[in-house]
Amino acid sequence: MLRVVLVEPEGEYNVGFVARLCKNFEVDELFIVRPKCDINSAIKFSAKGESILRNAKIVDNYDDALKDVEIKIATSSIANNKGDILRKAVFPWELPSIMKSEKIALIFGRESVGLTREEISKADFLLFIPANPNYPTLNLSHAVGIALYEIWKAKHEIKPKITKESIDLLDKYAKILYDLIKRSEEDYVLYIALKRALIKGINDEEEARTVIKFLRRLYTRILHEDKE
Amino acid sequence: MLRVVLVEPEGEYNVGFVARLCKNFEVDELFIVRPKCDINSAIKFSAKGESILRNAKIVDNYDDALKDVEIKIATSSIANNKGDILRKAVFPWELPSIMKSEKIALIFGRESVGLTREEISKADFLLFIPANPNYPTLNLSHAVGIALYEIWKAKHEIKPKITKESIDLLDKYAKILYDLIKRSEEDYVLYIALKRALIKGINDEEEARTVIKFLRRLYTRILHEDKE
Repeated sequence: MLRVVLVEPEGEYNVGFVARLCKNFEVDELFIVRPKCDINSAIKFSAKGESILRNAKIVDNYDDALKDVEIKIATSSIANNKGDILRKAVFPWELPSIMKSEKIALIFGRESVGLTREEISKADFLLFIPANPNYPTLNLSHAVGIALYEIWKAKHEIKPKITKESIDLLDKYAKILYDLIKRSEEDYVLYIALKRALIKGINDEEEARTVIKFLRRLYTRILHEDKE
Repeated sequence: MLRVVLVEPEGEYNVGFVARLCKNFEVDELFIVRPKCDINSAIKFSAKGESILRNAKIVDNYDDALKDVEIKIATSSIANNKGDILRKAVFPWELPSIMKSEKIALIFGRESVGLTREEISKADFLLFIPANPNYPTLNLSHAVGIALYEIWKAKHEIKPKITKESIDLLDKYAKILYDLIKRSEEDYVLYIALKRALIKGINDEEEARTVIKFLRRLYTRILHEDKE
């Protein structure tokens, strides 16, 4: 269970956008502590996150928003100040390694002043999104988007694969085309470079088949000429 | 040089937020093609990105926004449809591997309908941010934020680069070899797939030169045969 907690959000566009992001990245619950803007006005920014916003739990108390949660992650654009252990932060790409529980809350503070030290101290971790040192302060909903994106990515680890057959075919055509153009044995690096670049650069099976078709056509084009 | 290009943006909050994100993630240039909203109203959402917004280049023509750029990356929330090579996409975390040049444009379409197929076809790559398959459509400025965050993250690692000359040569030989084997205009995807795989898969200038040599030899081999 992943819960997003907004503490005293001030802009209705941010609240709406956060609800939309919750839908985009499959967040289970949205809690809002003492909203400082009109939730009904937020709906027009929520797109297909509208039902998440309508079902959001509005609470008066910060602690109520953290009930039934095992790992609490606060966020801040001020972090890693020397000597300030409370503000020792984790980076977004480290989130998967600290999400060792099923019940997690990601907590975001006010647009104007963020979370208080007391609010941060009630969390287990502080998340910091690195950016321009001269202006690291992201808008609230954009910080939410980046954090949720990293978590979603970790949960879904998408790795398109090329089949062994396609790898063999790429190798085969790189090799026979190479045989047609080699002038000395040192030219072997041409074959190696092409084969490696293709295997590394091709995204998935469909793209592999398309490139193989290109190479096969080149090969038959040359064979055909040789026979004339 | 990293340039963000917005094509016909409709919401002033998105334009303002994008300018702020450009400041957060140290983008060099913001181009806006035919804005459909009031840029002055966008300023109140830009925070410390105000000067980026005031200096944004407003252009009438999509092609003008891509001038002086070597690698063009379009974005879409519709990608990887089976059989549609044009919409074959790279993921945000793959951006570092395709950013083999100093001059890059990231192109974002309209909130309502995204980029047209023609606009996408003028780019070298299509970026897709994965999310809930039932609702992958991120709000414009949130998509910009995630893409810029991934690029900013990657910039802190040193990546070997390919020269513009090599990118042009890879493109050139992919194109002229394609011209030799094409049977119909639909075969265009063969050229697209090979070019993308090579730019993505090649690690550095030396490897680029080696692959170019291979392609050039194939070309002269075919030309030579044709003359016999």
